[in-house]
Amino acid sequence: MTAGTEFWHDIMGLPKGKAYREEGQGVDVAFFDSGEASVELISPLDNDSGVAKYLAKKGPGMHHLCFEVDDIRSTLAELSAKGVQLIDEEPRLNKKGIEVAFVHPKSTGGVLVEFYQLPTKKI
Amino acid sequence: MTAGTEFWHDIMGLPKGKAYREEGQGVDVAFFDSGEASVELISPLDNDSGVAKYLAKKGPGMHHLCFEVDDIRSTLAELSAKGVQLIDEEPRLNKKGIEVAFVHPKSTGGVLVEFYQLPTKKI
Repeated sequence: MTAGTEFWHDIMGLPKGKAYREEGQGVDVAFFDSGEASVELISPLDNDSGVAKYLAKKGPGMHHLCFEVDDIRSTLAELSAKGVQLIDEEPRLNKKGIEVAFVHPKSTGGVLVEFYQLPTKKI
Repeated sequence: MTAGTEFWHDIMGLPKGKAYREEGQGVDVAFFDSGEASVELISPLDNDSGVAKYLAKKGPGMHHLCFEVDDIRSTLAELSAKGVQLIDEEPRLNKKGIEVAFVHPKSTGGVLVEFYQLPTKKI
């Protein structure tokens, strides 16, 4: 993570955002914000996680694109109805209480696509 | 490009942005907007372009990240002074009159990073 932080924060100047350990995925994550978008660094905790295997096979680089949606269940239902292959038919909760789901790269032209739905804010 | 358009526009619903032929790079490009960010599809015109060779070697997927900057020359000078390896020491003009430059993935943790500076708008 240090090498990544050095480039994206120290050199590129992107401000640090959220950073936490995602035990379920076996990774540390750290966000660096750029306007409405963020660069997310992902670093595996061991050699067994999916990310560790991806790294061993492909080397470091871009891993996925994530889009925020208002209603992740309706998004997944709509994509499924259109024949898109989903990795997660149902959203799962990450450590931060955010519902996330992945679309299979076979349906996107080789891009691993993630959706997340932020918890409803109290007004 | 059709397969990509089908996913990013028809299925994902991202509105179509700019689309044009970039003869200098030997590619057709098409943008699909998502908030302040865009997904850019790149399709090679022949088998000789850098993008065609990348596709033949790596298969379809993510290619690069691009960041808009206010002053591309000062960005490049700053990165170079910090020891970042640049592909383009000087920005080049693309077909749309936008100055662009690439940073070598060796300096970024495997991510091909592009900068572009929009032409100054007349007020």
